[in-house]
Amino acid sequence: MTSDPVRLGVVGLGRAFMLMIPTFDADPRVKLVAAAAPRQESRTAFEQEYGGKGYESIEALCADPDVEAVYIATPHQMHVDHVLAAAKAGKHILVEKPLAISMEDADRMVRAAREAGVHLIVGPSHSFDLPVDLAARLIESGEFGALRMIQALNYTDFLYRPRRPEELRTEEGGGVMFSQAIHQIDVVRRLAGGMAEKVVAFTGNWDPKRPTEGAFTALMSFAGGCVANLTYSGYAHFDSDIWMNDVGELGQAKDPASYGKARRALMDLDPEEEARLKSTRTFGSGAAPIEAAHNEHFGPVIALCDRADLRLTPDGIEVFGDTERRFIEAPFGPAPRKTVVEALVRAVREDVPPVQTGEWGLASLEVCHAILRSAETGQPVALQHQCNAHQ
Amino acid sequence: MTSDPVRLGVVGLGRAFMLMIPTFDADPRVKLVAAAAPRQESRTAFEQEYGGKGYESIEALCADPDVEAVYIATPHQMHVDHVLAAAKAGKHILVEKPLAISMEDADRMVRAAREAGVHLIVGPSHSFDLPVDLAARLIESGEFGALRMIQALNYTDFLYRPRRPEELRTEEGGGVMFSQAIHQIDVVRRLAGGMAEKVVAFTGNWDPKRPTEGAFTALMSFAGGCVANLTYSGYAHFDSDIWMNDVGELGQAKDPASYGKARRALMDLDPEEEARLKSTRTFGSGAAPIEAAHNEHFGPVIALCDRADLRLTPDGIEVFGDTERRFIEAPFGPAPRKTVVEALVRAVREDVPPVQTGEWGLASLEVCHAILRSAETGQPVALQHQCNAHQ
Repeated sequence: MTSDPVRLGVVGLGRAFMLMIPTFDADPRVKLVAAAAPRQESRTAFEQEYGGKGYESIEALCADPDVEAVYIATPHQMHVDHVLAAAKAGKHILVEKPLAISMEDADRMVRAAREAGVHLIVGPSHSFDLPVDLAARLIESGEFGALRMIQALNYTDFLYRPRRPEELRTEEGGGVMFSQAIHQIDVVRRLAGGMAEKVVAFTGNWDPKRPTEGAFTALMSFAGGCVANLTYSGYAHFDSDIWMNDVGELGQAKDPASYGKARRALMDLDPEEEARLKSTRTFGSGAAPIEAAHNEHFGPVIALCDRADLRLTPDGIEVFGDTERRFIEAPFGPAPRKTVVEALVRAVREDVPPVQTGEWGLASLEVCHAILRSAETGQPVALQHQCNAHQ
Repeated sequence: MTSDPVRLGVVGLGRAFMLMIPTFDADPRVKLVAAAAPRQESRTAFEQEYGGKGYESIEALCADPDVEAVYIATPHQMHVDHVLAAAKAGKHILVEKPLAISMEDADRMVRAAREAGVHLIVGPSHSFDLPVDLAARLIESGEFGALRMIQALNYTDFLYRPRRPEELRTEEGGGVMFSQAIHQIDVVRRLAGGMAEKVVAFTGNWDPKRPTEGAFTALMSFAGGCVANLTYSGYAHFDSDIWMNDVGELGQAKDPASYGKARRALMDLDPEEEARLKSTRTFGSGAAPIEAAHNEHFGPVIALCDRADLRLTPDGIEVFGDTERRFIEAPFGPAPRKTVVEALVRAVREDVPPVQTGEWGLASLEVCHAILRSAETGQPVALQHQCNAHQ
């Protein structure tokens, strides 16, 4: 397999691509052969680094016969056009979460991939994290009895990282719902088997200077009776990484002395300066990739089963059993997101779809919208487009 | 004040009384002058320890003119009769949570106290914990802006501590709702100001051998827009004290090596043996009081305000502000529950009611019932009997 890597074309060389670099660099099962990006400096940097071809548009990239599959890492609102273009060209697709912003777009994308006979994978999301994958398999095995409840919480500085203006407008996919809730939903759906039935939620939109959802809290019930409790705040106060062994979302050791950094960096910046600051985090801008020493995570997660509670940590699963505690390691490897590459390789080479298909991504997106609707109406919202996690 | 302590009669010398002993022993503002208990050995132990008088019934105790106020620490289902008897005798009352099991009983008790012109205080509950009290005052001060959200969670071994049979029957006040949820509700109501509006919840009843609620998860919304997220599990697996500096509910240092102790102690016991094991934890049975070195707590609590998140710990409040973290100590003193004594003394001597009045206890009880009803119907339940925390 190593001698015949999947030949991947990257669309978008921004922050999302940056976070995939350590994996692409370390996993021999994939090879970057092309990239599409609007900025010349990014394309040049890509060509120098990977020896692949730089294109100005996704159409040009998709016309390259050497590209087997495309990784779409563009801003949310562009996913729909880019997925449709890739499907039309008959390329397999890995598209960043969220699949889309509107359900209509998501539906068009899923249908386009199906009609073109290509695999559509939505990821990476934190449901690919090794400890999540391990926990899901442990739960599925039945070793600990029925899964009854999941508690997931995450307190980050998301809302105060540098943003482009549209990233602070909910209707354009801004705020924590489409960028962050989608992760947590993906994680709990992965653990609970996917078939959510109902959600009831409250959202927080508390900073007039950044007028979009910065927090939410929700209860989701699943077929079979499991219930998940989700809480997220991106308001850069409490940092739940202190309950994750001081390991950050990307697996990096976190320095407690850096508290308040995100808010401080934004002070007195106008939107244009802020967007410029964000662009310093993209490929070709000289920004260094994150140095991880642990698996990625999305905050504390406890999964309550009949015979044990499973606590997910950046290094594995702590099993709190009836009479004893033990730890099951999820070894951190050189390719932090190898599960994403695995999903891609199995789809492209063995025609085996992953859990996180287009249908799966659409189902997670449905929950985001249901949270917004429930918060508006104060009522539980029934879900209609869920799918299960069986592979 | 010290030279003229409140002369208290204790009704019930079981586990609840045991947990008050360190406070009664250390706080000179209260003096135990009488006790009522059905068992001779408890009464004798009380007389020897405190020099007060032992009575066989609450009526006899209440006829003692030396008794100014009574502390009712009997099993839940007896609270109603005992509160009515004390009110009838014109004694001020401190009654253990929950005030009652049924709303009808709670209502009768509140009316009886009002008609008799005596103070009715419901406690101790964890809303009296020093860090909770401190956080409530900080929030009320407005220093951190509006309170937006509260996250409260607690994972304990409650369901596997030794129980009398009725403590495992919900309709008789058993399970986690009336003994444990009531604490968490009291804490979040104290922080949010008391006026809950709606609750939506799920409950867990997962062990056929202990067929009562052992877990729940709920969202409560408050007047003013704050929302609280509550989760509790008493299934003796994950232990959230690891997120409270390894300090237990009663302020004691916890030995991680004792994991699984509660379940192990119950193995192979029949209900009668279990009830006998429980009775070894009462007064006069030789059980030692808990040795606390920190304030009591009821699991991790995060209160999100506009300008800071407050994290409650057993030693105070960690303030996660916009650009810096700081710690406000809640000093642990020799009388762990001095706030309860304070409430009693102020009510009896200065005619100032505490936050935790009978009306307050009835309002918290209403939420317990609303959680059960919401879990049954799958719908949010509107609350009708709330009161605020203004003193």
